[in-house]
Amino acid sequence: MNKAILLISSPDKKGIIAKISNFIYDNNGNIEHSDQHIDSQTNTFFMRIEWSLDGFNIKREDILSSLKPLIDEFNMKCSLHFSFIIPRVAIFVSKQLHCLYDLLLRHQSGQLKCEIPLIISNHSRAKQIADFFNIKFMEFPVTPHNKALQEKEEVNVIKAEKIDLVVLARYMQILSSDFVREFPNRIINIHHSFLPAFAGKSPYRKAYEKGVKVIGATSHYVTEDLDKGPIIEQDTVRISHRDSLSDLVRKGEDIEKVVLGRAVRWHLERKILVYNNKTVIFD
Amino acid sequence: MNKAILLISSPDKKGIIAKISNFIYDNNGNIEHSDQHIDSQTNTFFMRIEWSLDGFNIKREDILSSLKPLIDEFNMKCSLHFSFIIPRVAIFVSKQLHCLYDLLLRHQSGQLKCEIPLIISNHSRAKQIADFFNIKFMEFPVTPHNKALQEKEEVNVIKAEKIDLVVLARYMQILSSDFVREFPNRIINIHHSFLPAFAGKSPYRKAYEKGVKVIGATSHYVTEDLDKGPIIEQDTVRISHRDSLSDLVRKGEDIEKVVLGRAVRWHLERKILVYNNKTVIFD
Amino acid sequence: MNKAILLISSPDKKGIIAKISNFIYDNNGNIEHSDQHIDSQTNTFFMRIEWSLDGFNIKREDILSSLKPLIDEFNMKCSLHFSFIIPRVAIFVSKQLHCLYDLLLRHQSGQLKCEIPLIISNHSRAKQIADFFNIKFMEFPVTPHNKALQEKEEVNVIKAEKIDLVVLARYMQILSSDFVREFPNRIINIHHSFLPAFAGKSPYRKAYEKGVKVIGATSHYVTEDLDKGPIIEQDTVRISHRDSLSDLVRKGEDIEKVVLGRAVRWHLERKILVYNNKTVIFD
Amino acid sequence: MNKAILLISSPDKKGIIAKISNFIYDNNGNIEHSDQHIDSQTNTFFMRIEWSLDGFNIKREDILSSLKPLIDEFNMKCSLHFSFIIPRVAIFVSKQLHCLYDLLLRHQSGQLKCEIPLIISNHSRAKQIADFFNIKFMEFPVTPHNKALQEKEEVNVIKAEKIDLVVLARYMQILSSDFVREFPNRIINIHHSFLPAFAGKSPYRKAYEKGVKVIGATSHYVTEDLDKGPIIEQDTVRISHRDSLSDLVRKGEDIEKVVLGRAVRWHLERKILVYNNKTVIFD
Repeated sequence: MNKAILLISSPDKKGIIAKISNFIYDNNGNIEHSDQHIDSQTNTFFMRIEWSLDGFNIKREDILSSLKPLIDEFNMKCSLHFSFIIPRVAIFVSKQLHCLYDLLLRHQSGQLKCEIPLIISNHSRAKQIADFFNIKFMEFPVTPHNKALQEKEEVNVIKAEKIDLVVLARYMQILSSDFVREFPNRIINIHHSFLPAFAGKSPYRKAYEKGVKVIGATSHYVTEDLDKGPIIEQDTVRISHRDSLSDLVRKGEDIEKVVLGRAVRWHLERKILVYNNKTVIFD
Repeated sequence: MNKAILLISSPDKKGIIAKISNFIYDNNGNIEHSDQHIDSQTNTFFMRIEWSLDGFNIKREDILSSLKPLIDEFNMKCSLHFSFIIPRVAIFVSKQLHCLYDLLLRHQSGQLKCEIPLIISNHSRAKQIADFFNIKFMEFPVTPHNKALQEKEEVNVIKAEKIDLVVLARYMQILSSDFVREFPNRIINIHHSFLPAFAGKSPYRKAYEKGVKVIGATSHYVTEDLDKGPIIEQDTVRISHRDSLSDLVRKGEDIEKVVLGRAVRWHLERKILVYNNKTVIFD
Repeated sequence: MNKAILLISSPDKKGIIAKISNFIYDNNGNIEHSDQHIDSQTNTFFMRIEWSLDGFNIKREDILSSLKPLIDEFNMKCSLHFSFIIPRVAIFVSKQLHCLYDLLLRHQSGQLKCEIPLIISNHSRAKQIADFFNIKFMEFPVTPHNKALQEKEEVNVIKAEKIDLVVLARYMQILSSDFVREFPNRIINIHHSFLPAFAGKSPYRKAYEKGVKVIGATSHYVTEDLDKGPIIEQDTVRISHRDSLSDLVRKGEDIEKVVLGRAVRWHLERKILVYNNKTVIFD
Repeated sequence: MNKAILLISSPDKKGIIAKISNFIYDNNGNIEHSDQHIDSQTNTFFMRIEWSLDGFNIKREDILSSLKPLIDEFNMKCSLHFSFIIPRVAIFVSKQLHCLYDLLLRHQSGQLKCEIPLIISNHSRAKQIADFFNIKFMEFPVTPHNKALQEKEEVNVIKAEKIDLVVLARYMQILSSDFVREFPNRIINIHHSFLPAFAGKSPYRKAYEKGVKVIGATSHYVTEDLDKGPIIEQDTVRISHRDSLSDLVRKGEDIEKVVLGRAVRWHLERKILVYNNKTVIFD
């Protein structure tokens, strides 16, 4: 069944839910999900509304223009999505392949509604997996010298492949601001710590040395500030003094996969709204 | 600020969200929370909508009758609540007092918006606490002989005190069907296991003997079927072979308190809808 | 470094720890891990002791006979293992392949110290994966008619391949008592519920219909009583009324993999002792 | 039953477990718990051994001197405790009383084997509770001017009352280095964040503003570095964009209580060893 999904943020104002709901109903749409949130600190209203296009009176290409009066009245920011437009995802990976595998298997089992036409790596290790899953693999080895050039190439490929979302599945290179600015809120990273604790390099080692009793993983949109973008999802797992550094890595990998898998799924299902460097997750 | 809360369940039908939202907006109400759920198996629609009564055009006592046309059109079941009507809670307790204490402290700190005018017990142990918190304490010792009679007395007291919700905070007597039928979906129990596992007596002992690696607690509305009413909340905690039966009790008590506290709060905030012996929690 | 691991259970008696520790020290062994547990209900003593064989005075094949006086004195049951003897694992699987993949990837990353020479299935679906990972794949389609015969064949293959551990990675056939008796405490199953709740068929459906707020997964040794063998590990994950049956399946699969992975690893590292249909996990 | 508990740390060396175990056995002690850990990074050995004094051949006051040869041989640091010497605890509290209540109730129910003769506060709010539980209450209002003086008074009282452990149960004053140095590894604090994230003031507000999806609580020994002492225990709880700052406080308080309760219990049961600003917890 074809569905439309509308994401809205605006200053909170009386009547906004009623008028949006009416717009859909008056045009013969059946609302299947409707979720709202008001951030009381900033008085901002957020809405995600999903409705069936079966029998809907307005042509897809005209929906946004038909909404124009409401958009103006409420000073809304809107984004409109359709369930039949399948997003295209590129996965960046380095030597650790557990998150890559995990995403490919979630995709295979139908959990992730997307196409995955492209895997990019600064190493060759993932090539065999890409082949097994019939995905184009491109290796871009990165050195301090060639980094800017390689990133330009990567951007070109991503655009040529019409990629909607870039997933950094334990990609161990820091992307430049130039790269990041090309894809605002369209790059998801998994960081192997409970941010803001242990940002940057070697978070498991830092956690081990600090002697924490719980470790975590964080998925977030990538911004120009390293490991400081809007957090999408986090989870934690208990450790003890008995756990060596490699036990931390092992336990952490299990939550990295789950946390990244959730973040990518929510993004693909248009369940995430970003504001104030934070996220609203309409799950 | 005075607010109204409307809980709705009905067969799912196009237009229901729009018309309810409009009803409130057209009468100058400001929707502060609106949450919906569709049970796709039974095609049932559920809604919780909360709006400010400041400037609302309809008098409180006329809201339900004004909704009559919508109620008929959509075949809705409705319940309407007001934030300024503070529910009255009676707590039943036996010898274990941790849940009683926990509820009283949550009440004292403002987490539970209710009055607690009455504590009933089949023992005298809680009297001192009731005194400290300035709550009326009534002891109804129960024997197989006097049980029916004592329950009748308890029902009379509960009605005389205009109690809205009865909380069984580790009350170790099984209430008769006669008692339970008096207060449908208005008695909340905490059972010290992960239901449906280990229903009935001595769940910690059963869990210990079974050798499970996780134990749980369950809060549920009480029905005539013992430990089988609609589940409101559950939580679990890890155990190991090192934990003795008394360790299970200690660890379990910590989640009993949290699980019961959540269930009571949700009930008081009118966030629970019951259907098909299950619950929708609009939290 | 070559290590010996000794697992002991016996009636609890003064001196047992001292004498075992001395046996190793007097023969120039360096104890690297030593863990004990006393079950106070049955007065049973359990021990796992791991020491380096570098410079150990007793030849491997003579260790048990050298221990004979202690075994007799304390009425011990012992099992002795060596780190350089790599266990051989066969994985049984049906149509759901997530647990199979997960075990193969844990093996590949070095988490599971074993060989996996054999995958057996009642379907053909896993063949391609077996090929990719270079593992022998055998299909044994099962019907009510041929079941006994096929199981005999499977037992023969398992013995011919010198398999130490059989892992049922969502294998959807019930093994007969004849099969199970061949491999006591050497078959690990993953059941997709929080046992003892929802044993048998369709646990996710049962959990959905019951309206529980938390679901679970359980790994256990297989005994002749279906889903009643000694529990090795369990974990749980929260669900809500918003989760459909397929959401339960998705969320459940993530914990199935983790729970089964832990159980298999503990078995391979000789960290599990079984008694009274329960387990001691020396992790 | 009277028991001795010996805590040991030393460089790791062959024979240490055997010789300690023998020392106890040879003197007719029955080992009830024995737990070891080797920190492989620093090659440090840790042990906690608990044995029954019934029939033990060495008088209590002579145990340490009898151990002298072993202490010298292995260069051990030892501390010896007896189950019949009940530690005395002072609780410091400010205006938030949930942790104070929680500790008093755990004490009342027998979870905490200690005496609690003293509550100290910089406010008067806890006086009524202290009275209800029959505990001496002392108010030391703190200003920038009188802080040094008040701390001296507090130290005097703590010493006069022969206090073994000071628990900061949401005490909102920062203790001076002079105070802290008086009680090394004998002051336990609860910090309402997942350290090292959100150290210092207003951690819930910082977590809210950062938009994290999980919050935490940390109990640790107090050192001169604010919120940087050895972590004893941590736990976390999920939050979402729906949770206001006061929801974070409410959810956080539930884990603060549990985390602090565990830390205090482990300290009282002599289950904690501190090294390298980390802890080994022999639970």
